[in-house]
Amino acid sequence: MAETTPPVAIIMGSRSDWPTMKRAADSLDRLGVAWTSSVVSAHRTPQRLVEFASGAKAKGYKVIIAGAGGAAHLPGMAASMTDLPVLGVPVQSKALKGLDSLLSIVQMPAGVPVATLAIGEAGAANAGILAAQILALSDPVLAGRLNAFREAQTEAVHETVED
Amino acid sequence: MAETTPPVAIIMGSRSDWPTMKRAADSLDRLGVAWTSSVVSAHRTPQRLVEFASGAKAKGYKVIIAGAGGAAHLPGMAASMTDLPVLGVPVQSKALKGLDSLLSIVQMPAGVPVATLAIGEAGAANAGILAAQILALSDPVLAGRLNAFREAQTEAVHETVED
Amino acid sequence: MAETTPPVAIIMGSRSDWPTMKRAADSLDRLGVAWTSSVVSAHRTPQRLVEFASGAKAKGYKVIIAGAGGAAHLPGMAASMTDLPVLGVPVQSKALKGLDSLLSIVQMPAGVPVATLAIGEAGAANAGILAAQILALSDPVLAGRLNAFREAQTEAVHETVED
Amino acid sequence: MAETTPPVAIIMGSRSDWPTMKRAADSLDRLGVAWTSSVVSAHRTPQRLVEFASGAKAKGYKVIIAGAGGAAHLPGMAASMTDLPVLGVPVQSKALKGLDSLLSIVQMPAGVPVATLAIGEAGAANAGILAAQILALSDPVLAGRLNAFREAQTEAVHETVED
Amino acid sequence: MAETTPPVAIIMGSRSDWPTMKRAADSLDRLGVAWTSSVVSAHRTPQRLVEFASGAKAKGYKVIIAGAGGAAHLPGMAASMTDLPVLGVPVQSKALKGLDSLLSIVQMPAGVPVATLAIGEAGAANAGILAAQILALSDPVLAGRLNAFREAQTEAVHETVED
Amino acid sequence: MAETTPPVAIIMGSRSDWPTMKRAADSLDRLGVAWTSSVVSAHRTPQRLVEFASGAKAKGYKVIIAGAGGAAHLPGMAASMTDLPVLGVPVQSKALKGLDSLLSIVQMPAGVPVATLAIGEAGAANAGILAAQILALSDPVLAGRLNAFREAQTEAVHETVED
Amino acid sequence: MAETTPPVAIIMGSRSDWPTMKRAADSLDRLGVAWTSSVVSAHRTPQRLVEFASGAKAKGYKVIIAGAGGAAHLPGMAASMTDLPVLGVPVQSKALKGLDSLLSIVQMPAGVPVATLAIGEAGAANAGILAAQILALSDPVLAGRLNAFREAQTEAVHETVED
Amino acid sequence: MAETTPPVAIIMGSRSDWPTMKRAADSLDRLGVAWTSSVVSAHRTPQRLVEFASGAKAKGYKVIIAGAGGAAHLPGMAASMTDLPVLGVPVQSKALKGLDSLLSIVQMPAGVPVATLAIGEAGAANAGILAAQILALSDPVLAGRLNAFREAQTEAVHETVED
Repeated sequence: MAETTPPVAIIMGSRSDWPTMKRAADSLDRLGVAWTSSVVSAHRTPQRLVEFASGAKAKGYKVIIAGAGGAAHLPGMAASMTDLPVLGVPVQSKALKGLDSLLSIVQMPAGVPVATLAIGEAGAANAGILAAQILALSDPVLAGRLNAFREAQTEAVHETVED
Repeated sequence: MAETTPPVAIIMGSRSDWPTMKRAADSLDRLGVAWTSSVVSAHRTPQRLVEFASGAKAKGYKVIIAGAGGAAHLPGMAASMTDLPVLGVPVQSKALKGLDSLLSIVQMPAGVPVATLAIGEAGAANAGILAAQILALSDPVLAGRLNAFREAQTEAVHETVED
Repeated sequence: MAETTPPVAIIMGSRSDWPTMKRAADSLDRLGVAWTSSVVSAHRTPQRLVEFASGAKAKGYKVIIAGAGGAAHLPGMAASMTDLPVLGVPVQSKALKGLDSLLSIVQMPAGVPVATLAIGEAGAANAGILAAQILALSDPVLAGRLNAFREAQTEAVHETVED
Repeated sequence: MAETTPPVAIIMGSRSDWPTMKRAADSLDRLGVAWTSSVVSAHRTPQRLVEFASGAKAKGYKVIIAGAGGAAHLPGMAASMTDLPVLGVPVQSKALKGLDSLLSIVQMPAGVPVATLAIGEAGAANAGILAAQILALSDPVLAGRLNAFREAQTEAVHETVED
Repeated sequence: MAETTPPVAIIMGSRSDWPTMKRAADSLDRLGVAWTSSVVSAHRTPQRLVEFASGAKAKGYKVIIAGAGGAAHLPGMAASMTDLPVLGVPVQSKALKGLDSLLSIVQMPAGVPVATLAIGEAGAANAGILAAQILALSDPVLAGRLNAFREAQTEAVHETVED
Repeated sequence: MAETTPPVAIIMGSRSDWPTMKRAADSLDRLGVAWTSSVVSAHRTPQRLVEFASGAKAKGYKVIIAGAGGAAHLPGMAASMTDLPVLGVPVQSKALKGLDSLLSIVQMPAGVPVATLAIGEAGAANAGILAAQILALSDPVLAGRLNAFREAQTEAVHETVED
Repeated sequence: MAETTPPVAIIMGSRSDWPTMKRAADSLDRLGVAWTSSVVSAHRTPQRLVEFASGAKAKGYKVIIAGAGGAAHLPGMAASMTDLPVLGVPVQSKALKGLDSLLSIVQMPAGVPVATLAIGEAGAANAGILAAQILALSDPVLAGRLNAFREAQTEAVHETVED
Repeated sequence: MAETTPPVAIIMGSRSDWPTMKRAADSLDRLGVAWTSSVVSAHRTPQRLVEFASGAKAKGYKVIIAGAGGAAHLPGMAASMTDLPVLGVPVQSKALKGLDSLLSIVQMPAGVPVATLAIGEAGAANAGILAAQILALSDPVLAGRLNAFREAQTEAVHETVED
């Protein structure tokens, strides 16, 4: 029996981005959305990027989450080669603390959008949730899980500042 | 006969944001996606914001595009009250040129994502395209139009630097 | 016998902001001003925010101190739903060191002010003092304590650079 | 019959700040709060600053609004010499667009707060409103006017993006 | 008779970059170095980018000058697909004045360098000169012209501040 | 016998600035220039500032070195009350790493200069050297020591990258 | 009869800096301090820089005012070749508005100070005043003129915001 | 027998830059390109800089790699005195994290280019590779090694995010 492609592909520019990007996977796990992960370096493996991005839709992916740091070209270049929504996560860089990553990802020219999230782990976690929000538009069961997740999240915010 | 809610709602913090946000509407028009537009000020009409955002899903919207400048709270607050994907457009501000708008929109905490686009008109135009990419996941006809749009866009890039 | 509402409410977006915001409470304690504290997340508990902010005046609060980090929407959104003075404290964020928090809080549009203090602990301590300065305008006893505090502060500045 | 001191003093570092600071006066006028205005340069007239700030409370002022640009020391230095609340307005500077003004005003050390507003005209307008909010805590008539102002402001936000 | 490939290829992300990038062509003209120019959009014509960059060396180019603005991915992506030196020119962007362009181009990860020049016209002019400096290492005639150009430039700096 | 005032006064906003400002004293010691040090907080001890700055010239000081962090008003306010050259040292702040200190010190309006040095210890060390350079203009013996110091400094730069 | 060298040399990287640097000359004129001006480009005329800076002291100059924009190396390099005080003026640059000029001038390493003034015309005007303050330390007549200038400046600050 | 000059000279402003700049040497070693290294401080040893830079071409160097931090003048000043390509590496500074180093190096005026790389170790590593790319234009054997290096680099990027 054929294996089906999960709806979400998580790609990142380097293995060192995984501790950040794992947060996207965690969000998807909590929401019951399947995903794959792989390292696709825009700069060191441009051909892998071309193959992945231009083939992602045909392969059955619905949403691409792409994380990168510094001169972060991966999300924008993936977006240039597919019609699928691409969610970009600016990984915190060493010297400029992710400001370079953020600007490299978000400041795309008219015509090729990248849905950009916050710098670092919060952004990665939110990329997973946003992917689920997108998929939930045509998946009522997921919409229910998402709703429950949001409600649980609200309830988990204790009003007191200390235990 | 009942009027149906268009899939995309464009909201903005002030009428002065419309020259920017009109670019989102233009993208949606070109891709044949219906939209509504309204001014919802997070700060001057917070109740309108609550009503709009918490009721958007029930009303039938699929995607919210929210533009604001300066301490731009509209996209994030809309996102806090709905499970729908919220696309945020940082409108260029006077003193800080939209850097304040961008950081106010994109740096959301884990749990409540805003899909942030570029500062200004390019970001607004891309918000419209991204909304269409999201809707196209479950709308093959729109997917076809989107694909044609992207191909036309590619062909429109003349190789010569001058006519 | 009915419990009276303290004049100052300290709210913050997350329990993790308490080590910073505790400095506001410390200032108020030193000046003999009563306060309450609670976690009100603009993004994860928007309804709690609406209830708190729109009811704060009726409940008897005089001044609201609101601390938040990153896309810090809590102070501005509280200010949008009350006529009480709202003092905003930008909590230092991880990647951008509070510059995002500061701009998200201070760059409010005309019509809805937030009295913004410095990033981090100094800003929180000053929010407590500023709240007392505001309350002291109609409370001569507090005015006296405030004056004594300021004088003691001045005297505590040793002229020599080392002991 | 003796003239009474108005509750709000608007001071600014230079006559060239008046087009910005006039917005504070406009807000106070709309809310029926009396004010005085004067040029007090922290750097060119330090003695005038000392006299003004250390005598402001005795003279009967309740709130000081101070605007300055660049290395904007006026708000902080006024705050160092009075227990009155000082509201600081960062005037937009030529080269750095008011980022220098903002940081010079807001980053006060623990002990001496300045309630900082947004850069430029919006900040000045809000300084006037904030002064009224502070005064309204002990002036029910002003509180009523303030409430009406806020409601009128909310109603003035037209929902349609164009006439 | 076969036409030979000029040593320098000037590429840019959009026709609107030509007024800036023309300065590179001007420098090359003054130094007698032949060039071609073409629009290659990393985002709107990714396939053209792949074809150009991966074929540039075989076609006979020696140096690539690439200019782009905003999320400027063209120089880095060209560099990822060729061993030729790639010189990157950050074109001044509207909102962030080229700071986004600069960081997107210069902050490349270890392994794939882009030789980055200044933002705007000065950077473009210098890209042409740098290309000539590189080619002159193995072209003594060009080295002579370059030396004469530099000497003339030095002589052209009048000592008096006014005529 | 009367004690003479040393030519250089080192003042700083807080004892916590001494580890930085001690570098100015070290430079002066190495160059044989006498100095005094004291804590003068512009914000917590404004009267001490007024007394110090307006009396510095009469007391016999020649050069004032003033260090402060954050909203660093000490150098500029000292400069506003004396004709003596004031050298400003931006002390590195916690959140914004001294960028706020730098802009608060250097962006003085026309009429009242502050000679600003680099952020942190290098700036403090250089303030001591600059004070000596200024004093050496009318002190040939100091000029000789300064020259020897500079030559020794040049000789101390080993050409090899490792021992 | 031999011409004497004026005490102040104003140098700048380009003729286009003169409209800014003229403000330094204006200040010196008002204070009765003689000056020379010349264009010395650190990058295009490095030998002229070496000759000027290493010979400035022997020629009789007392203070050097150096203005430059962008990668502004002129003040620091002049300072590296002389013991005279070098005052640096960051000329406002096109893209980054003088932030690059400021950081290039002020962030000197320990050992070689540059007394940095504000970006643009205010900084240039202040460089002239600072030069006079330095020279006045050993010139009582100039000290008197400087004092009169400062007093006149103070008196010229009208207290009213409008005529 | 005469020793030949290696093609690449690595210079840096201080011994403390070596841990960063060593990465350039590592790249060159891996690609089989000989190099020399030395400390040349633009500010503390300006004469050494003049001698090195103006003599580099005659001595036989082909490419200069220059690293410096803060007010990083070394690359630009070296470039002002030679026709050889100068590659600039912004060393990460303490307070401003290398943003000052980057702007001081990259924002060169038209006429004197510096090929600027990323801040810190990645930039240094890339300077070595870029030097090899430049030399490989006239050295087919090196071109082959470079090609093999790039291919090995591509192959070394594992697709899986964890082992």
